[in-house]
Amino acid sequence: MAKKHILIVPGDGIGQEVTEVGKKVLEKIAAKFGHDFTYDEALIGHVAIEATGDALPAETLEKMKASDAVLFGAVGHPKYDNDPSAKVRPEQGLLKMRKELGLYANLRPIKLFDELLSASSIKPEILKGADILFFRELTGDIYFGEKGRKNNGDTAYDVAEYSRYEVERIGRKAFEAARTRKKHLVSVDKANVLESSRLWREEIQKLALEYPDVTVEYQFVDATAMLLIKDPKRFDVVVTANLFGDILTDEASQIAGSMGMLASASIGDGTGVYEPIHGSAHDITGKGLANPMASILSAALLLDISFGMKAESEAVISAVDQVLKKGFRTGDIADASTDKSMILGTHAIGEEILKLI
Amino acid sequence: MAKKHILIVPGDGIGQEVTEVGKKVLEKIAAKFGHDFTYDEALIGHVAIEATGDALPAETLEKMKASDAVLFGAVGHPKYDNDPSAKVRPEQGLLKMRKELGLYANLRPIKLFDELLSASSIKPEILKGADILFFRELTGDIYFGEKGRKNNGDTAYDVAEYSRYEVERIGRKAFEAARTRKKHLVSVDKANVLESSRLWREEIQKLALEYPDVTVEYQFVDATAMLLIKDPKRFDVVVTANLFGDILTDEASQIAGSMGMLASASIGDGTGVYEPIHGSAHDITGKGLANPMASILSAALLLDISFGMKAESEAVISAVDQVLKKGFRTGDIADASTDKSMILGTHAIGEEILKLI
Ligand SMILES: CC(C)[C@H](C(=O)O)[C@@H](O)C(=O)O
Ligand SMILES: CC(C)[C@H](C(=O)O)[C@@H](O)C(=O)O
Repeated sequence: MAKKHILIVPGDGIGQEVTEVGKKVLEKIAAKFGHDFTYDEALIGHVAIEATGDALPAETLEKMKASDAVLFGAVGHPKYDNDPSAKVRPEQGLLKMRKELGLYANLRPIKLFDELLSASSIKPEILKGADILFFRELTGDIYFGEKGRKNNGDTAYDVAEYSRYEVERIGRKAFEAARTRKKHLVSVDKANVLESSRLWREEIQKLALEYPDVTVEYQFVDATAMLLIKDPKRFDVVVTANLFGDILTDEASQIAGSMGMLASASIGDGTGVYEPIHGSAHDITGKGLANPMASILSAALLLDISFGMKAESEAVISAVDQVLKKGFRTGDIADASTDKSMILGTHAIGEEILKLI
Repeated sequence: MAKKHILIVPGDGIGQEVTEVGKKVLEKIAAKFGHDFTYDEALIGHVAIEATGDALPAETLEKMKASDAVLFGAVGHPKYDNDPSAKVRPEQGLLKMRKELGLYANLRPIKLFDELLSASSIKPEILKGADILFFRELTGDIYFGEKGRKNNGDTAYDVAEYSRYEVERIGRKAFEAARTRKKHLVSVDKANVLESSRLWREEIQKLALEYPDVTVEYQFVDATAMLLIKDPKRFDVVVTANLFGDILTDEASQIAGSMGMLASASIGDGTGVYEPIHGSAHDITGKGLANPMASILSAALLLDISFGMKAESEAVISAVDQVLKKGFRTGDIADASTDKSMILGTHAIGEEILKLI
């Protein structure tokens, strides 16, 4: 029996709906395995701005630091997207959280549940067996460099920046992971154009000497964007910079059939944060249609990585797997052959999964 | 009868092989339609470095400026890719050419030949009917901002930058093109994080007021990377920044079955440059295996855009189409059902296409 304190941070849009289900899964696991999980909740993003004027209130940050793990939803609101001059934005909360908690490594496992082989727009024979683990650097790059306007506001700029230290620590995590998998690492950069990519490549080349058992391949980001679709099975572990990771992992979600299936773990110096890779999806918010499985699988990652609870984590993944085997689907992963009566909403599919834990 | 001077710049790797075929197509068109095309040739990239020490020799640039259009191959060499500290690099030639010629708009049409519907890793039913025209900004962004090292070389940086003027001129080209197509424009940025993207979005929003007949949609680059694979048919014209365009168009090549089929036009203030979107592909260089169709289709774009020769351009495209209909393939677009005897090399498939012009 372990005693753990978990902070629930649903954020915006469907973040609310799916995180509620993710939390229920954690409660069920605690009951079943006899753990003592306590919970608290905090605001971030648009809902935090509305309530406090701040996208990451000090109270939320304190609660995060004081908890053993954070189950996170999503942030974002169309209101800000269409107003490029807005000064306060939901995403600032997310980025500040990543920086303040030192969450420099974002792990995004891309694995297709067998049952969803036909849900993707990519051919089943191309997908079958694909299993990729992305390490996206999360606290550097153009996300956190200086940005602003000059020439009377007529020019805007953003600085992309990497230090050797930043590349080394994420690189090391990726090499270590590759060791436990197929021992193949693809480092993605744009070293033919960017100085920050050249430094990135230098550091990965140095690390490679320490991991002679891991085969390293260097790819440009443009070629990688193509290869992920052409031949996803050629990838095992991928390590890349913040912006490239943002783009490539969203793209790679199609390998797993839907964004609604993809969980991520952000880890680093302190508390780990677990969240779906999908966003706040305001177009379907409040309709009870969102796929909660990314949040549920984020809870599974939380159990595994932050708490070291392998059996508990596997119990969650297996419940998701069984529900899919039974034929239940959410709208995003249904296809033409799906019996309409098997398409469930957020809450209902969550209940089916809970039953199987 | 028109008199035109065309500069052939094959560059590196398979650039040599495919551009040779592209040139033959131009010769055939001239003979057939009674035009007087004259040719010259010039060096760029690795071959230029080897010969002159400079990736874009002054002589090449002069010849480019003096010609009516440039048929370009590719640049790059693995030697530099694996040496992040190399001071002279083939890509410098390409980037300098783009800047010096003011080639701010890179058009990349993504259209699948019906015959190749099954060559892609994406399902035919997802692809059928997809027809996207990308406008990639080509002389700004992180490609051309200040870059360097600091902190004793322990930190590397690259500055991404856009001025209103730069966004407006590429945006206008995209709106104009949308007008002649399905009147739908997707502007891709990362305005939830980048200041340069926020300025980008502001300018596109302003332009939208001038083009009320065009529906504009704003998408983040990560979501776009996903949507291109999930539902390529939802796109008509796409306009985006240099780096995002680089990544998204390589990814989108999978919609057309293969990179080997995709041509591009770089236009702006002076001479237009036409080139395949594929690279120098040193792994297959000199083997006679490269697909020359991207170069041939680049020649078709050259005829259409720089010379206003619609019929000539269509004659080229139709010849490619017929060769595919006859069942001829290069290795990259062959699939399990392709009769081995129909898989031809660079030269042989070029001859088949020439016959049909
Ligand atoms: C919301 C946005 C700022 C964020 C990012 O770009 O990192 C999101 O896309 C993600 O991947 O977590
Ligand atoms: C070779 C490289 C510098 C170039 C680019 O990034 O622009 C290429 O990928 C392209 O798309 O033309």
